[in-house]
Amino acid sequence: MTTEEKLKKYQDWIFKCSAYQMALNIIVIDKQTVAPAAGASYRDERSAYLEGELFSLETDPEIVALLKDLQEDPEVDADNRRAIGLYYKKAQDTLCIPKAEFVAFKKLCAESFDAWILAKSKADYSLFAPYLEKMIESQKRLYGYRKSDKSIYDRMLDDFEPGMNQEKYDAFFAALKERLVPLIQKVTKAKQLREDFLTQNFPVEEQKKFMEGLLEYLHFDPSWGYQNESEHPFTSWTCENDCRTTTKYLENNVISAVLSTVHEVGHAYYEHNINPKYDGMILSEGVSSGMHESQSRLLENYLGRSMAFWSYHYPRLQKHFPKQLGEVSLEEFYQAINVAKPSLIRTEADELTYPMHVLIRYEIEKGLFNGSISTEGLNRTWNAKYKEYLGVDVPNDQVGILQDVHWSDGLFGYFPTYALGTAYAAQYVKSMRKDLDVDALLAENHFDTIMNWLKEHIHTYGFRYEAPELMKMVTGEEFNVNDFLDYIEEKYTELYQL
Amino acid sequence: MTTEEKLKKYQDWIFKCSAYQMALNIIVIDKQTVAPAAGASYRDERSAYLEGELFSLETDPEIVALLKDLQEDPEVDADNRRAIGLYYKKAQDTLCIPKAEFVAFKKLCAESFDAWILAKSKADYSLFAPYLEKMIESQKRLYGYRKSDKSIYDRMLDDFEPGMNQEKYDAFFAALKERLVPLIQKVTKAKQLREDFLTQNFPVEEQKKFMEGLLEYLHFDPSWGYQNESEHPFTSWTCENDCRTTTKYLENNVISAVLSTVHEVGHAYYEHNINPKYDGMILSEGVSSGMHESQSRLLENYLGRSMAFWSYHYPRLQKHFPKQLGEVSLEEFYQAINVAKPSLIRTEADELTYPMHVLIRYEIEKGLFNGSISTEGLNRTWNAKYKEYLGVDVPNDQVGILQDVHWSDGLFGYFPTYALGTAYAAQYVKSMRKDLDVDALLAENHFDTIMNWLKEHIHTYGFRYEAPELMKMVTGEEFNVNDFLDYIEEKYTELYQL
Repeated sequence: MTTEEKLKKYQDWIFKCSAYQMALNIIVIDKQTVAPAAGASYRDERSAYLEGELFSLETDPEIVALLKDLQEDPEVDADNRRAIGLYYKKAQDTLCIPKAEFVAFKKLCAESFDAWILAKSKADYSLFAPYLEKMIESQKRLYGYRKSDKSIYDRMLDDFEPGMNQEKYDAFFAALKERLVPLIQKVTKAKQLREDFLTQNFPVEEQKKFMEGLLEYLHFDPSWGYQNESEHPFTSWTCENDCRTTTKYLENNVISAVLSTVHEVGHAYYEHNINPKYDGMILSEGVSSGMHESQSRLLENYLGRSMAFWSYHYPRLQKHFPKQLGEVSLEEFYQAINVAKPSLIRTEADELTYPMHVLIRYEIEKGLFNGSISTEGLNRTWNAKYKEYLGVDVPNDQVGILQDVHWSDGLFGYFPTYALGTAYAAQYVKSMRKDLDVDALLAENHFDTIMNWLKEHIHTYGFRYEAPELMKMVTGEEFNVNDFLDYIEEKYTELYQL
Repeated sequence: MTTEEKLKKYQDWIFKCSAYQMALNIIVIDKQTVAPAAGASYRDERSAYLEGELFSLETDPEIVALLKDLQEDPEVDADNRRAIGLYYKKAQDTLCIPKAEFVAFKKLCAESFDAWILAKSKADYSLFAPYLEKMIESQKRLYGYRKSDKSIYDRMLDDFEPGMNQEKYDAFFAALKERLVPLIQKVTKAKQLREDFLTQNFPVEEQKKFMEGLLEYLHFDPSWGYQNESEHPFTSWTCENDCRTTTKYLENNVISAVLSTVHEVGHAYYEHNINPKYDGMILSEGVSSGMHESQSRLLENYLGRSMAFWSYHYPRLQKHFPKQLGEVSLEEFYQAINVAKPSLIRTEADELTYPMHVLIRYEIEKGLFNGSISTEGLNRTWNAKYKEYLGVDVPNDQVGILQDVHWSDGLFGYFPTYALGTAYAAQYVKSMRKDLDVDALLAENHFDTIMNWLKEHIHTYGFRYEAPELMKMVTGEEFNVNDFLDYIEEKYTELYQL
């Protein structure tokens, strides 16, 4: 075969894989948003079968040989060379797994999600524990098939953030703790800010009306995006012009759905803005979970919690909730949504204490995979860590161990990327502020200009480069956690007049 | 292989087919409800590919041979014997088609739907005409591959309603016209009933609140069903406990979304109530389109347009719209929603003139497939027929030829089943009334009892029997159009005091 013929075969294969992937994504979106609960087992079994079909395609020996061949073909262009390398690595990591085990694992993931939904609704960890146990056992076995001298958990960390491992994350979290813990202590002793007005009754119907205007401001429109609701907000996508997000409304919290929306729209923009020539290819995925979270956390925190953002939106919010917020000034509102205090829920935590929520999960995952922590009584372990790190008492499993969807989806090793991505974002924002008057753009309804900067500098490349390369390209520097810590110190010193 | 081994292989094959079918159904539901428009071409191409994978499965020569073998195996039980016969027929009808043409047709269907959405929004038939033309050409070619001495259109009619053809439908419509046309004339000359209050402004948000109570009354709940919105209401399903419907709200019409909901829930109940042992099998499909429409039209007309139904719901509706309906009595409301008059939109037509809408489509389809009518200027042909049969002037294509989704989905030969199903339903209702006090059940919020009767007598069997057999089992009689005509005559004679 000529190189051209080989590439044609390779591209046909990519197309086929992308068709299955699209179907599976849509099935998951459907499952987590609107699909009737009692139909779950019928659907779960069949989606696991289709996962198996995709598995067979991705590990087809003929294709693996083709990839190996193409990897060494000098006529292959740089984009495809990069993609072929990634595909080949993925195939190597996967083809060692027996297909039947892979399919069984996918079925378990789907069932485990159903169990999590039920357990969360009943605030009862014991309903979820057997699934979690099976999930961990399965993941240990599946990852165990890979030839590697790394520990299982390190393999998982590396899958979500290539190059990362426990040693590096330990150092990362130690650096965070070193400056955050004293800062949290100072804030705790400072004069506290009002925030009681955020948790009045805010009818969901009215929140949805405010949301319409927000989505318009974000330019997240039906031509390329759609927002639904789900128990745990998420983003999924199929191509440049098809990005789905979800949010969750809480009647007694006016800010939760707003910030979760801005967060998820950050993920959606990343996918939407990737060069469409990569659509359907492995290069159309974000670089890493950390990079993906850097974009969602950038929008959520650096933009969504800023004074400039709210100087535009707060008058609108007041119009929707005159009774609740009519007497609250913009300044008071801004302070309230940035109040730092130990709390129960990661997704609603402030920027200062957020890394502690992540650290708790990271330590539990480490323990689960190195055998020092068991799934039995894991809710008590969870609660003890919340007491230790954040000083809060967890009243029940719903707002404790069952709050996050990730483990039910088989995602272990993902959590640390939230903290890492948040830190990446600080460096990106610093660079962006050199080029743009970000605050003026936010205040004057020019969100698209900010997104265009992110598109041009980060999003468009998709998975073309590794995270450290991309960081260097965008900021001219290596990753450095101090930009995040400086930002936090400055913000909270000013906010609490420390 | 033993019979047991053969059946195992056959059941594995059914499972695989059902997995693809489920994925494709969910993709279509997603496409027609929430999927971002600009992602359509990416998705369409990939869903057509997956249709092709299902096609390959369904026409796998090894499986076709197995089906043929099992058909003659005396050890196969009656249910499977029936199913195997249906699968074998389906495979025979399909495997003559070249796969590439089949995939191209499926892609065309998806694109044609997108073109229809656009054309309808712009009220411009010319944007849809090229797709319609290609669709008809493709269908002629694909149906042409079948060995058959029937005309192409007769093959299509038979696919939707086994045993039906143009000769039988011609006779059916002639019988309808014979008694309906004089009745329509009498009604036209009678004292007209008020209905102006139905087309005031009814804010959609408030309609949705009314809908919540309606869905509860119908016992259409999130454990097994989900209602969304779409340009053209439809129902889709994957298994017993997963039935999806859509509706469409019109701000200037309080009754449209209600009746379309009741109609689609009729389809949903049919699927939900089919014996779950048939889940995923061909027997889990309704007997025929006519039988399916008999259930939706039964709910829509015989229940949803009845005085008993509204004696329960009208006070609720008045509470939601006191300004618009506070002064309108139940009697006046009942009369208004049953006013018979020539109109533009099939799905909103009254029971008396509805068959004329269907007749127009049937005549156009006949013409399109026998060559006497062309897609060029088909909007003018449409308008002329509406003038001829219903005496109305069609102001634009949106409320004319573009009103229905069916042709964009490649469905030709489906329309007549709406009229046939409506007539089937009259016979079913007559039987049901012998067993149940339907009016009391409707008025007293016991909708479930009615659904249980339909389940027991009709739904549970799925595709186990042919339509004429089922009709005989349920009613003890052959199908007879006069029950429908008697019902209509009685209803309208009373309503208009003829």
